[in-house]
Amino acid sequence: MVGLLSLRELGELGIIQIVEQSLGSSSQAFVGFGDDISAVRIQGNQVAVLKTDMLVGSTDIPPGMTKRQAAWKAVVANVSDLAAKGVKPLAGLVAMGLPSNLKQSDVQQIARGLSEAARAYSFPIVGGDTNASEDLVLSIALFALAPPKRLVLRSGARDGDVVAVTGKFGSTAAGLKALISYEMLPEELPRELYNAVYRPRARLDVGLKLATSRALTSSIDSSDGLAWSLHQLSESSEVGILIEDVPVSNGASAFARKHHLRDVDLALYGGEEYELVVTVPPRNFSRAHRAARGSLTRIGVVTGKFRGVSMKSEGTIRPVKKKGWEHFRSQ
Amino acid sequence: MVGLLSLRELGELGIIQIVEQSLGSSSQAFVGFGDDISAVRIQGNQVAVLKTDMLVGSTDIPPGMTKRQAAWKAVVANVSDLAAKGVKPLAGLVAMGLPSNLKQSDVQQIARGLSEAARAYSFPIVGGDTNASEDLVLSIALFALAPPKRLVLRSGARDGDVVAVTGKFGSTAAGLKALISYEMLPEELPRELYNAVYRPRARLDVGLKLATSRALTSSIDSSDGLAWSLHQLSESSEVGILIEDVPVSNGASAFARKHHLRDVDLALYGGEEYELVVTVPPRNFSRAHRAARGSLTRIGVVTGKFRGVSMKSEGTIRPVKKKGWEHFRSQ
Repeated sequence: MVGLLSLRELGELGIIQIVEQSLGSSSQAFVGFGDDISAVRIQGNQVAVLKTDMLVGSTDIPPGMTKRQAAWKAVVANVSDLAAKGVKPLAGLVAMGLPSNLKQSDVQQIARGLSEAARAYSFPIVGGDTNASEDLVLSIALFALAPPKRLVLRSGARDGDVVAVTGKFGSTAAGLKALISYEMLPEELPRELYNAVYRPRARLDVGLKLATSRALTSSIDSSDGLAWSLHQLSESSEVGILIEDVPVSNGASAFARKHHLRDVDLALYGGEEYELVVTVPPRNFSRAHRAARGSLTRIGVVTGKFRGVSMKSEGTIRPVKKKGWEHFRSQ
Repeated sequence: MVGLLSLRELGELGIIQIVEQSLGSSSQAFVGFGDDISAVRIQGNQVAVLKTDMLVGSTDIPPGMTKRQAAWKAVVANVSDLAAKGVKPLAGLVAMGLPSNLKQSDVQQIARGLSEAARAYSFPIVGGDTNASEDLVLSIALFALAPPKRLVLRSGARDGDVVAVTGKFGSTAAGLKALISYEMLPEELPRELYNAVYRPRARLDVGLKLATSRALTSSIDSSDGLAWSLHQLSESSEVGILIEDVPVSNGASAFARKHHLRDVDLALYGGEEYELVVTVPPRNFSRAHRAARGSLTRIGVVTGKFRGVSMKSEGTIRPVKKKGWEHFRSQ
């Protein structure tokens, strides 16, 4: 290979492909690259679930976000991936890169945000590593245990399954657009958008209950955007997905009306929104809905008739773009 | 707390203290902050051993080091901590922050270095995360399993124990000094110094054999410098350490002679040298020595008569400074 492409030309997916090819797939890996988490078999019919996700200051911290909120978000991003698989975190580590212009109070804020998030999701952070760096970096790693069959992977969706989501979409995209494109201040954001951007929550409780119900065939979190997540499910499960409706948050709808945007675009092509996107055989849907305490909304169906993701709207079917947050290209 | 101190004033230890205090100690943590690894109890009288160590381009990559070597070193730094505890890595994760000026070939080199190191220490890298960042960041996390009693912690050294090390010291310090202070080129370094800087190795085999021999009372790796590691053992075990001799590498001795330096300073106050520093009751020493295939050198004794670390040299006893590589202060 010549290797002259820039990272922007390669894109995040191109980079991941190089790394995965070089590291190879391991026979010890029960789940390797290409799902929300990784897992290795250990004794006693258990798998160790391993997850790492890195928050980088220059790309992952929106304007106006405090260090405490950034640290909270770094943890939430990791917990959300475990939530999508139905697994409870048992312990976490944090490796930090801290720019030298930070102050003692910044470190206190980061420590507080980490601590609050770990407490909110009931696991201890038991170790870490501290480094000087040019960029603020918070790299979290989580550990969990599960019986292998408990894990709800991306690959199990089947023709005829219902596609469903938790929550409503678009608040984060609307909030980020308000902050970045319209230069609004955090305190000017409606509460729904403010909370989505600065105080996101992982759907751990619902994820655990859904996995316990054994009603799901596949699951992913929506952190790279709803459209992106649907495409991932479609590719991993080798099926098509037909979307009929997307639940848009009131805040995103109002923002879209005011700024003459399509609210469904905010809902589909956002990101940093930590909802769950799942598939359920129709006969299991009411069980899943009960397990999720009513927080599951049907948005479409899985189909064997085509591949990819399409959306039915006003009588016509149009493809949903594979677009979302992709590092190196989206910036 | 007012929090006005700069990170340089706080130092790495001050930062770690803030983070540890905020995160608190957890009842689930069998080993928390303050040792080479962390560990949590799981079922079946096992602990899950967790480790994360981050390599940062602007501080951890010496001049002339290739991306492939940097990736190798990032893995070695993590494996070395497991080696010191006597634990074999079972699986790893890698979270990467990549500056946008890197090329495809850099990513290929990084992937190759990660892959070579993982293969050298016989574990798979099963997942990861890719991000854009201003600094090159390779954050590795390792997972292992062990019976709790197998872990050789920093806290077990007792009055009368022998202090011993693997390998000889000073090559990395001499090599880095040659590159940075004397602006030598990598190819001008003697092979011993070149290998120490660009191709360090973790003492995993010896660490595993020593733990299996059950001869040790405490252990640490020397990655922050020999003097620093001895101080850590002294503090964690609440004992004093009297050093009588330090094995200096031939390369470091020759370099010291040529540049009118004290070779023992290169050996004591270096860092990024991945040897093991252990304590052994005298009755176990020959067993430990056999287990380590002769690669263990006695350098001093543990004493209850004082705290801290001192060195006997030419008839007088002088304190060994608690000095080594400390992020935020050493740069």
